Order: sequence, then C-alpha cells, then structure tokens
Amino acid sequence: MKKVNVGIVGGTGYTGVELLRLLANHPQVSLKVITSRSNAGQAVAEMYPNLRGKVDLRFTEPSIESYRQCDLIFFATPNATAMHQVEELLDAGIRVIDLAADFRIKDLNVWSKWYGTTHVSPKSVEQAVYGLPEMNREQIRGARLVANPGCYVTAVTLGLLPLLKHGLINPSTIVADCKSGVSGAGRSASLATAMCEVSESVKAYAVAGHRHYPEIKQNLRQLDERADLVFVPHLMPMIRGIHATLYAEVVADVSEVQAIYESYYAAEPFVDVMPQGSHPETRSVKGANDCRIAIHYLEDSKRLVVLSVIDNLVKGAAGQAIQNMNLMMSLDETAGLHGIGFMP
Amino acid sequence: MKKVNVGIVGGTGYTGVELLRLLANHPQVSLKVITSRSNAGQAVAEMYPNLRGKVDLRFTEPSIESYRQCDLIFFATPNATAMHQVEELLDAGIRVIDLAADFRIKDLNVWSKWYGTTHVSPKSVEQAVYGLPEMNREQIRGARLVANPGCYVTAVTLGLLPLLKHGLINPSTIVADCKSGVSGAGRSASLATAMCEVSESVKAYAVAGHRHYPEIKQNLRQLDERADLVFVPHLMPMIRGIHATLYAEVVADVSEVQAIYESYYAAEPFVDVMPQGSHPETRSVKGANDCRIAIHYLEDSKRLVVLSVIDNLVKGAAGQAIQNMNLMMSLDETAGLHGIGFMP
Amino acid sequence: MKKVNVGIVGGTGYTGVELLRLLANHPQVSLKVITSRSNAGQAVAEMYPNLRGKVDLRFTEPSIESYRQCDLIFFATPNATAMHQVEELLDAGIRVIDLAADFRIKDLNVWSKWYGTTHVSPKSVEQAVYGLPEMNREQIRGARLVANPGCYVTAVTLGLLPLLKHGLINPSTIVADCKSGVSGAGRSASLATAMCEVSESVKAYAVAGHRHYPEIKQNLRQLDERADLVFVPHLMPMIRGIHATLYAEVVADVSEVQAIYESYYAAEPFVDVMPQGSHPETRSVKGANDCRIAIHYLEDSKRLVVLSVIDNLVKGAAGQAIQNMNLMMSLDETAGLHGIGFMP
Amino acid sequence: MKKVNVGIVGGTGYTGVELLRLLANHPQVSLKVITSRSNAGQAVAEMYPNLRGKVDLRFTEPSIESYRQCDLIFFATPNATAMHQVEELLDAGIRVIDLAADFRIKDLNVWSKWYGTTHVSPKSVEQAVYGLPEMNREQIRGARLVANPGCYVTAVTLGLLPLLKHGLINPSTIVADCKSGVSGAGRSASLATAMCEVSESVKAYAVAGHRHYPEIKQNLRQLDERADLVFVPHLMPMIRGIHATLYAEVVADVSEVQAIYESYYAAEPFVDVMPQGSHPETRSVKGANDCRIAIHYLEDSKRLVVLSVIDNLVKGAAGQAIQNMNLMMSLDETAGLHGIGFMP
Repeated sequence: MKKVNVGIVGGTGYTGVELLRLLANHPQVSLKVITSRSNAGQAVAEMYPNLRGKVDLRFTEPSIESYRQCDLIFFATPNATAMHQVEELLDAGIRVIDLAADFRIKDLNVWSKWYGTTHVSPKSVEQAVYGLPEMNREQIRGARLVANPGCYVTAVTLGLLPLLKHGLINPSTIVADCKSGVSGAGRSASLATAMCEVSESVKAYAVAGHRHYPEIKQNLRQLDERADLVFVPHLMPMIRGIHATLYAEVVADVSEVQAIYESYYAAEPFVDVMPQGSHPETRSVKGANDCRIAIHYLEDSKRLVVLSVIDNLVKGAAGQAIQNMNLMMSLDETAGLHGIGFMP
Repeated sequence: MKKVNVGIVGGTGYTGVELLRLLANHPQVSLKVITSRSNAGQAVAEMYPNLRGKVDLRFTEPSIESYRQCDLIFFATPNATAMHQVEELLDAGIRVIDLAADFRIKDLNVWSKWYGTTHVSPKSVEQAVYGLPEMNREQIRGARLVANPGCYVTAVTLGLLPLLKHGLINPSTIVADCKSGVSGAGRSASLATAMCEVSESVKAYAVAGHRHYPEIKQNLRQLDERADLVFVPHLMPMIRGIHATLYAEVVADVSEVQAIYESYYAAEPFVDVMPQGSHPETRSVKGANDCRIAIHYLEDSKRLVVLSVIDNLVKGAAGQAIQNMNLMMSLDETAGLHGIGFMP
Repeated sequence: MKKVNVGIVGGTGYTGVELLRLLANHPQVSLKVITSRSNAGQAVAEMYPNLRGKVDLRFTEPSIESYRQCDLIFFATPNATAMHQVEELLDAGIRVIDLAADFRIKDLNVWSKWYGTTHVSPKSVEQAVYGLPEMNREQIRGARLVANPGCYVTAVTLGLLPLLKHGLINPSTIVADCKSGVSGAGRSASLATAMCEVSESVKAYAVAGHRHYPEIKQNLRQLDERADLVFVPHLMPMIRGIHATLYAEVVADVSEVQAIYESYYAAEPFVDVMPQGSHPETRSVKGANDCRIAIHYLEDSKRLVVLSVIDNLVKGAAGQAIQNMNLMMSLDETAGLHGIGFMP
Repeated sequence: MKKVNVGIVGGTGYTGVELLRLLANHPQVSLKVITSRSNAGQAVAEMYPNLRGKVDLRFTEPSIESYRQCDLIFFATPNATAMHQVEELLDAGIRVIDLAADFRIKDLNVWSKWYGTTHVSPKSVEQAVYGLPEMNREQIRGARLVANPGCYVTAVTLGLLPLLKHGLINPSTIVADCKSGVSGAGRSASLATAMCEVSESVKAYAVAGHRHYPEIKQNLRQLDERADLVFVPHLMPMIRGIHATLYAEVVADVSEVQAIYESYYAAEPFVDVMPQGSHPETRSVKGANDCRIAIHYLEDSKRLVVLSVIDNLVKGAAGQAIQNMNLMMSLDETAGLHGIGFMP
C-alpha cells in the first residue's frame, strides 16, 4: 500500500500530539520527523506517555534536510511561524498544511490587523487553499499549501453554510454564541488555563474581538456578501469540544430547512445532520472527526437556531488536517479518521 | 435580637439544603421545622453531612400544626405543590415564599400551558408579589406571599433591566443564550444528570421552549411591552452557576451605557456592575448572593452584549428567597447573605 | 478476511456501548445482534449518538434464535443474569464472554456470599476460563466460556503478579488503595452517581467489603496461597480510569525489581512498564486497552509501591473482552485494540 | 468589640485569597495591609473579583512600616521567605503566623534536607509553636510565632492521633494514601496544574518523598516515638479537598475505637467523628474549617482504616491559620469560621 511520508513542525502542543495520536494509526502514513526546538532530543513518548509503544520518534531540531524525506509537512506551530518557512518547503516540492492562521485570511490588511504583524509571504497566501473540505474539496485535492481552518470557524461555518446558500436568513442578523473546551487555548504554562481558574466556572472572553471573527466572516461572505455576525466565544470547564449556538432571523419559507441540510450534507463523510429538534452533545464527537448539527425553527420569533458541535482538536484541528492530507495525497478521504466519539 | 421563626416544606432538594446552609448562619432566624414526606424521621444532617453540628432538625411529615410555630414558610417543593397549601397558611397568618413557579406567572392561561395543569388558587397568584427585589422591593416589604423568581430569569432580567428602562435597544431583538450548571436540574435519581452523561460535555436543551421563557417575557414587558426574546438554555459541566449572554440591537446613543448601569444598580447590595468590557466568571459568585454584570458595546454591529452571572442556587434560588424574607420581616436586607464567592 | 459474527446481550450500559465503539471498528467482526428487553425496537444510535453512521443495529428482544447467527456472544448484563442463559448458548455451539461476575469466582460459597444468590450453573463456573490473558492466555485460546475480570481486579492483579511470582514481598501485607472514575458504577438513574453528588469530591466506599476483593484474592492465591490484602475503593470525580496504588513489605532483595517487571511483561501487547520511579496518569490510557505500571522502592520503610492504571471501560471491561474474543477466535490478539489514550 | 489589626504578606496565592475571603467576614478583624511585590498598586478585588465590594485594599510593597499598624501578620509566602523577616516583626511586638513551612520542623537538619537551604533563623524555629490546635491548643494561646501545619499533615495527624494516643496500632505499619485537589499545588502559571493536564485523570506524585512526610512523622512521634509511615500523595481532578485513607495493623482490642475517637474529639469545635463505618466526602467540608473522620475495622485482616477529610485551603491552610489567630488573640476560637461545606 502506498505510504505518505509526513513530518510535523512544532509537535509539542495539543494539536501536535493529536496529530500524532491520529497519524500513528493511519494505515497509509509513515511519520518521519517531528521537530521542536526546545525539546530536541527528547523522545516524543516521554512527553506524551499515551504514545509509548506507538510512536518511537524523538523531537529533532527543525531543518530543511530532515523535511526533504517527507511528502507533506504539518505546521502545528504558533501563528506567524509557518509563513517564514513555507516557501522553501514548497520550492522543495513538499506539500504543506498549516494548522495555525498564517494562510487563512486572504486580505492581508485584515490579517495584519488581527495577528499584529506584517505577512512575509503574500504569494503563499494567494496560493493557499482554505482547507474546509465541505467548501473547497476540489481545490484541496490539487493544493500544495492548505490553510487548516480555525476550530470555532469550522463549527460555525458548517452550521451556517446551507442557510446562506439557500438564502433562508437575513445574513446580517447572525449571532454565534460559541462554547469551547480549554484545550482550544493550547498547551502552555499559563494561569489562565489552570484547573483552579477555569474548572467549575464559565466565562465569555474576547467579546470585543476574536481572531476567528474575520475568518468566519470571510467564509460566510463567499456565500452571501452581506453576511455579518456577532461572535462571542466562551470558555467551558471541560477539555475538548466546541458547541456553536447560531441564531438568525428567517426571511424565507423554512418548512424544508431540515431537508435542505440533509441534502446539503448527504455526501459528506464527517457532517451528521440529526433529526430536527435534536440537541447534539459535544461528547458525542469527543475524539472523532465528526461535526454534528441540529436545526430548530422558533416560529414565534421567526428565528432559526442551529446547534453545531465538533471536537476542537479533531474536526477543529488535527483531524481536519488529516482529512485535507488525505485529499491532497489522493488517499481515501476518511483514512485514519474512523475514530468514534466517547460516550461516556 | 428579634428572631424570625421559619419552616421549610420539602427540604430534601438542592434549594432546600442551600436554604439550610444559609439559614443555619443567619443571625436572626430560628429554624423550626423542615418537612419531607418520604424522609420523615431522618435527621437532616444524615442526608447532608455538611450540616452535622449545624442543623439538629429531623425531617417531619408536613402538617399545619407544625407550621403554626413559624412566622414564615419556604416552599422548596416541586412546581404545582405550594398552590394546594398556600391559602391555609396565609389564613393562619403565616407568610409564604414559594421557590417553585406556582405564583410567578400572572396570566393563568400562560401558566397552565407551561406547567401542564390548572391552577387551584388564582387568588393567591393575584395576591403574590414577584420576588425580584431589584424590581419590586417595596411591594415585597409588605407582601404576605412572594413568588421567588426562576434562576435563569433572575440572571437575564437583571442583565436587561437598565437597557429596557432607558430604551437603548430594539426590544424585539433580544437573544438570551444562557449556560447553567447541573444543580439547576435539581436533586433526583436521573440519568440525565449523571456525572458520566453531563461531565466533559456541553449541550443546549429545551430549545423549542423552556418554562423560564414566559417568566422572563413577563418581566421584560413590565418595562417595554414590545419586549420579546429568543431564549436558549445550555447545560454546563459544572455544579453551580449561570452565565447569561444577552444580545440586542442598539437603537440609541449608548455612550453612557456603563454609567446608566452603574447608576441603576448603585444602591443595590447584590448587583455588581463591573468595568465596561469585563468578563465576569460564574465562580466569582459561587456560593454568594451576588449578580455580577458587564457590558460590551460592539460598534461594528451596533449590538450590546451584556454578561450576567449568578449562582443559580443562591441569587437564583435560596439566597434570593432569604433576601425576600429579610425584606418581608423588616430585617436588614443583607442579613445572612454576606457569603463571598469561592475563588478558587 | 475471516469475519467473526458476534452479539451483545444487554447492550445499553456503559460496557455495552464501549463494546460497540470498539467492535464497530474491529476489522474482523460483524456485529449481528444487540439485545435489550426495555429498549427493543430502538436504534442503538438513537441512544448513543456517537454511533450514528457507525452502528445501524436496533436493540432487539433477547432470543436464542437471534443468537444462533453468532459465533460468540458478549454478556454486558447485570450480575446473575448470564448464568441463566449460558448453558443453552454453549450447547448451541456459541462461545460466550461474560463481562459480569457470574463465572469469575470458582468457590461457589464465596460467590453466593458476595453476590447474594445461589448459582444456577455450577458446571459453567467449572468450565469457565478466567479471562485475564496475562495469566491464562493459553486456556483462553481454547475456551468456550470466558469470565471477563473485574475492573479493579485487572489493575491490581497486573500490578502484583511479578512481585508474587518472584516472592519479593510478604504476601499478607498488601494494601490496595484503588481510585476509580464514576463510569465504573454503570449507567443508571441513580442519585449516587449524579454530577452534583460526585463531581468536585472524593470518597471511599464499600470499605467493609467490595465484591472485587474475593476475586483479587483468588488471583493472587494462584501465585502465593498466603496472599491477602486490604482493598479500599474510592470514587474519583472523573468519568474513566482506575488508579491502583499497591503497597507491600519487602522480604527479598529488590534491586532487580524493575528488570523483573520488564521481563515479566516483555511480550505483553497491553502492559507497559514505565521507567522505575515514574507516575503513570490514568489519562494516558483513556480509551485504550493498555495497563501502565510503575514501581517505586521506598528504602527507608522497606516497602514497594506499585502504581497501575487502566481505563476501567477498556482494559477493565470491553477492551479486555475483545482481547479475549481475539484469542478465542484465533485472531490477532490486538485486532481492533490499537486505540491510543487521549492526552489531553 | 475588640478588633484585631492584621496584615497578609504575599497575598496573591490561593491561601492568600482564602484568608481574605474568611477574614473579610470575621467580626473581630480589621484587615490593614496586604503585600505583593509583583502586584503592588493593584486592587485586590481586581485580581479576585469575588472580593469586589468586600475588600477595598490594594496590594502594597512589603515594608516594616506598614506592618507596624498590625497586631498580627500572616505569611502566605513561598517556603523559606518568612524566616528572613520574622525576627524583625517579633521584635516589633507583632505576632506572626506562617502558612508556609519555615517553622514547622524542629530538626533543622531535616528541614534543610527537605527544603534545600539553610535556615536563617534557628531561634525562631525554637520559639515557634506548631499550630495544630487539637495537639497544642494551650501553647498556641501564648504563642508569638505559630507554624501553621501542612494540609496533608493536618488530615493525617487528626486521623491518627487517637490511635497512637491509645496504643491501638503497630505504629510502624501506617500507610497514608492521600488524595488532594489541585489547589494544593498553589496558584501559578504551570503546565503541571493546567486543566487539560490534570482534569479527568488521577496520578500519584512524589512517591519517592514529599515534604509533608517528615512533618507528619514529627507529629506522630510526639505520641509514639516508634511511629513511621508510608505516605503517597495523589492529585485529584478537583479544586479543593483532601481525603486521607489511613491503614494500620491493630495490636489491641479495638471494640471501643469509635468511643475513643468520639471522646478524644468531643470538645473539638472543628473535628467531626462520623458514625463507625461512614464514608466522609470531601465536599462535605468544602469551604468549611471542618475535619470529618470515620473509622472502619476490618476484622479479617486486623486492620483499622481511618478516613479523614478536610478542605486543604481551609482547615488545611487559611481556616486553621485563623483558628490559630483566634487562640493567640484571645478571641472565640470559632470566630469567623462558621462557614458550612457546600453540598452540592
């Protein structure tokens, strides 16, 4: 069986270890290299004992030499990192998937405003394909550089696509009230994500503006250029999971809304439209690459409420990246992604 | 010092034990009787070991005789229970606070629709004062029967009052996305609230309609008869706390909105308006009778976002009931309610 | 590829759904039937939305007819259930794995004392092989009836086997202080496992005697007939995981203890001996069929402390049952069991 | 009413804020100063919003001048801090309670070994009274310097005192398997206490040796000089609470053990001996200054198992410190400590 040789740059964070967890069982992947400047020399399984006996690699210093043995490199690095290295890799014929935000926003001014720096590789941004297979499957197949979407962005966009496509809502009335587990904040020594600070509590954060807002807007505007939204993220006392609660005013007959969603996603391997009126739980996708959606129509107030749940580390990050890799490398799109959510 | 003799009907649930926790340390309360049909004879502290050495009572069978020694009775019973007994108690000169929903809704047709039965004491509903001190303080002082508000209702109403009072928003555009800890579902042997079912997960519930919706609407319409809202409750993987995220379209100059809130609540002992742009955490009111509020104005989308947090068992239930008792019995409104939220 | 046809009796509990999660991705299993008297007719995926699109079966009434299409039946039923049906199944040539306790204890008097009833199939008990592959691999291969071990029992036995085998400890001084997640208590509408009762708290339970005590003792006595232990289980505020902390007085030179463990488990696919002095975390095996062990020698007090962790629903139940099935059906012992623990 | 003027040095950690939570409602305390080098100038209630409206102080730079207005200073600083300042304070006539470990261990060689530095104030160690009121109440009353006990130490010592006092056990066979919530690790930006690292998991730590081991031993040896123990701490996925499970071999008639405990602690305001065979839950003391104990005798194995629970931040730190302050300042020992545990 054909094997794809892959590498991971910056594999010590939660998206990195989740990539490892999934890739270690991917039937057509050979993991060649994983880099970490600060942990070079350490066995991956020493940092992540769940990988003992599953991943034998050690972290190494980043180097173009080691990347040359790879067909594809995942960047699981902080924002504004991949943009410095991507051109060299692409020039060397290596495909790249960036799990950070360097290539997601097409408008470089918008990008600079939200990420606080100037982009060093505008031509890569232009070349990059936005890696949401449910929007861009065909372009992803041919892509050399894929920008893997943000976690909130994935949940919100998948929840709204059919509505915008069919013009069912007033596109300027969208409210996206989103709830995320703490792993979305990444793996770092931070008081803000300490157990004693975030367990047994709920809070909103970044109400004034979150980086996923322009990314969601960019997606929605591909379907309706008038689209806008209020987006408020909240921190939940749990590790994994995103729950997007999406509100919009109805401007058309919605008696077929359930059928529209079911039809829209009928061929999608990872989007599950539940019966109308259901209440998806984030745990039903814990560890899985699924997005589970349910639609409610509130007749009194003429609002649609869409509930969309994902695992932020899987469909919101590592799983979606592997789905993109599968497409880019002409593998079965679902290869390595058959994991089932944990209940309980 | 004057002591008020009180009793609790149906004290085995979480609002019951929270009343006990707070009343046991109330300097002017003498707890005389606590009833439970199914647990009569059992020591309260046997069921709730936290009360060992603090509460010496045993549960007794409900009886009007035992209530006669009380100045005031709290009903911590299921909905549609207190309405059967309230007239006899009021006739006996005993004041009553119902923590359930029997006397909250003035429109009996609405009440019947949401609570699934016919009301047996319409005249009590008429007589009852809705026990939100921030709306009805003076009427509560003279009341013989107080309907203690619902937990979500308290968080949402306190978050919106100043906006509606000052006509700052389009009152038909309100979205109330609410998040509650599991204790809001009460104490019962139920799979739906089992640790393995609700921990490490988030879900919306009752999107089609929740009993607190008509109650919120009744409150808001006292300030603006056009007020309406979309209300979606969510279950959080934590024990205590409600976080209401409130969205509305702005229709007036909101440059003074922070000052309006601060002024509106300046004299309130239990409402804390944080600096504009803050993000209140539910844990900051855990165990306390406080409601903590923060306002955000999103200029781009002309929306106000108000964040309002309470402990559902305290300001959302037992604490507010005691605040009402203090008003009814001419005690210091804050007596017994000085507990400070737990951080961590 | 050869496919094994399997059925599950009583599949609505947590061990049942965990069997489904694992079997759905097992490359050589065809799931034919799953029974539940109380839920007959309901789609499995309706009760467990994580299985939507993965398991298409509906629960059916138990019937020998439906079992006849199976090579092997898993009983995920309450204790004292399988014993009533096992003979008929075995007579029909169907292999059986019981995940409950009906066939674990060889001494029927002991069994009756702890399980409160008389055994109806003593000959099945005699015939049954105790399904701990690390003790009984060869007998399991030929078995027609396997008694799948208890969860605590698995963690404790695997932690102690090498010590007893090599006579390193005084076998009457063992203390097994065990900590379990709440899923060990099963799936039921019970106040005792409600989120608000067990979250943010720790307690011991059944100190006077737990059913896993005689089972552990039976295992240990196969290696040293003087073996005995104090066993105290504790309930942890988490869903999955068992951590056994095992104490014993040393009676021999233990300078080779690490090598002894590594050698003892060298060929075991699911037992991982960490470097001496490590501290295994239950999360490192969450969702995985692994048992992870670390040894500490406290020279001052001449005690060995062994730390042994498993996922109670996997190596402690469904995963081990599948490992046994693989052995019984001459499949690769690790087939379907490559899942990696979740971190985070 | 007499008011005691107090100060807190290093008040930004969890013991600091817990002192504030309790002292703010203490009827006879006036909080004068709270210092923090790194947060000088910041309002306390800005860091801890639960204190908004309750504590108006700002953090200030440490200075002997500001301490002079105080009758008593609490050190809530890291280990090896108070020892540098204590002499100056005592010389100025200010009483001191150190919540860290500087004055707990009488043997300076032992202290140096475990705390990794040389003690700079041996005479203070000599002068200090070990602040466990249940052992040393009378000495505490007259003390000028009190060493507040460690959290594990409090739970273990209170659990074992009556046994050792009455010679019921072999004092060299004690096993103390202890479980602690994460707040015991303090408030700091640390990966080791991140929600995603410690939630939904259990682990032992510091099996090779924990600083509370010599402190427990020192306590036990005051009652029986042969006393020794194996002590293994475990990290629990919760915020507050310690559960000590204590095992020992019986060497005497224990038919009166329950009566012995009840009698031993009959006059203690904060130690609650439950009926024999009970299972105390840590949540029953959450936020309270109580230690709740239950005894089990396992006749088969001739072992006593004692279960002892406290809130590590209250009876294990800030609450006990206030109890000590009350004794030192001739206040009612229970003043300010009437808080009741949270259930739920």
